[in-house]
Amino acid sequence: MLNEQTDHHQATHHFEHEIRVTWGDCDPANIVYTARIPWFALDAINAWWEHYLGAGGWYHMELDRNIGTPFVHMSLDFTSPITPRHRLKCQVRPMRLGESSIEFEVIGSQNAIECFKGRFVCVFTVADAFQKQPVPAEIRQIVDPLLPKA
Amino acid sequence: MLNEQTDHHQATHHFEHEIRVTWGDCDPANIVYTARIPWFALDAINAWWEHYLGAGGWYHMELDRNIGTPFVHMSLDFTSPITPRHRLKCQVRPMRLGESSIEFEVIGSQNAIECFKGRFVCVFTVADAFQKQPVPAEIRQIVDPLLPKA
Amino acid sequence: MLNEQTDHHQATHHFEHEIRVTWGDCDPANIVYTARIPWFALDAINAWWEHYLGAGGWYHMELDRNIGTPFVHMSLDFTSPITPRHRLKCQVRPMRLGESSIEFEVIGSQNAIECFKGRFVCVFTVADAFQKQPVPAEIRQIVDPLLPKA
Amino acid sequence: MLNEQTDHHQATHHFEHEIRVTWGDCDPANIVYTARIPWFALDAINAWWEHYLGAGGWYHMELDRNIGTPFVHMSLDFTSPITPRHRLKCQVRPMRLGESSIEFEVIGSQNAIECFKGRFVCVFTVADAFQKQPVPAEIRQIVDPLLPKA
Repeated sequence: MLNEQTDHHQATHHFEHEIRVTWGDCDPANIVYTARIPWFALDAINAWWEHYLGAGGWYHMELDRNIGTPFVHMSLDFTSPITPRHRLKCQVRPMRLGESSIEFEVIGSQNAIECFKGRFVCVFTVADAFQKQPVPAEIRQIVDPLLPKA
Repeated sequence: MLNEQTDHHQATHHFEHEIRVTWGDCDPANIVYTARIPWFALDAINAWWEHYLGAGGWYHMELDRNIGTPFVHMSLDFTSPITPRHRLKCQVRPMRLGESSIEFEVIGSQNAIECFKGRFVCVFTVADAFQKQPVPAEIRQIVDPLLPKA
Repeated sequence: MLNEQTDHHQATHHFEHEIRVTWGDCDPANIVYTARIPWFALDAINAWWEHYLGAGGWYHMELDRNIGTPFVHMSLDFTSPITPRHRLKCQVRPMRLGESSIEFEVIGSQNAIECFKGRFVCVFTVADAFQKQPVPAEIRQIVDPLLPKA
Repeated sequence: MLNEQTDHHQATHHFEHEIRVTWGDCDPANIVYTARIPWFALDAINAWWEHYLGAGGWYHMELDRNIGTPFVHMSLDFTSPITPRHRLKCQVRPMRLGESSIEFEVIGSQNAIECFKGRFVCVFTVADAFQKQPVPAEIRQIVDPLLPKA
């Protein structure tokens, strides 16, 4: 897969999704407009799902597997401005798997400088019923080994 | 309805949709990023449908009436830059109603200066089948009197 | 001003910014895509600045007053899905004014149901230098009376 | 460069920019929202500039070279829906170089099916003056060999 790397030499897998930041992502302060950054983070989480569950990411999960993962929380700290000068590298890691929820950390960096760090919590739903459900077994199997060691 | 006006004194109705342009719509050239402008035009067309067919616009048409109107063509000329200094006023007019298609003109102005003019062609579909259909009768009834006189 | 209301009967002012949610804001789950919601919240904060400081909001502040307010933090809880069925009403309130920072609360509701609540922290900068500065005096004067009473 | 290919075996270069379409790009009809497509096309044109002129694309041109290329026209035909099932491949080709303008063709395809075809006309400006200028010499040198043979 072109844009993703998982580092199998490390104890934890660090999935990385690369984003080409453009002129249109920037505002008149010559840096990426703040509201684009959660969008980038979600693009990275979608790419993570695509990598682990199959082409199409959320689209595939919803339409083919009837699994929804609506967000219930996000929180981000912005530490350094983002520009189109460098690719934005977004590391995505599942941090916690609850009964029916998953928490991701996304760290975005450019030119080896951390630009933002965020936490994102999603719940699992039966997509067509929009009803909460426990973490599906095949997802638990995939995510468990990727979680930080206690 | 808050943002819309139709001028009943004129022979043709000029529906106007107002857009609050923001900082985040602009790029580092301090003007609205080009790719936002077709988005604005579609917001205006959606507002036109909302005004004439009911709250929710395309969302209502698709989910409640099973009518889709996918775009098959758009063409825009950009004549003056758009900024957050003034509200963007978008005049929407149906220009032509075919067997199973509709053509809109959208003219965007700020501070009485024309900024863009566009033509947009949509076809009518049975939404859940994604199949072309003739212009629904209730829509023909609404649109016919709004078309330019021959 | 068209879309904004401040309720002068209440002890604290509740500025409200109204958003017309559209078809294009929604994803295939038929609800607003999560990444649009911080964008809505920022639109509301920009409208707040526009209301209190002058037409153009952030654009005016940066280009005319050389005041930047980059975000350093945001955190949002999503409690109910957003659709184009109703206007989204976003209440914006300054909650805290630090030496060189401001914190906003934004609460988004539709049809009297709360959909999201967020906290947003911005720092004040000299815009063209991208250097932190104390809260400008004219802004402190405006914001102080709007803060929650201790 | 990761996502781009130029086919040097053909008489004309076909620059291709690949886009990962996501869930958030789609509307409730389960296909990409129309207003995203001009955005994709501009991303592809920006990538073309990045490939031929240097990292950062328009951002680099404006800030480092003081060259602006505002759009004066776009026109698109939409022939097949776009989904997240496949990568969207956007071929970008300069078609005409005027005294102070450039015209691009962008063709977007998924799974070997053409989804849209567009024409985009930009004029060259001295960026900080927002004044039209003739095509800069170094750009003419790059673009001339890429134009369709008469």
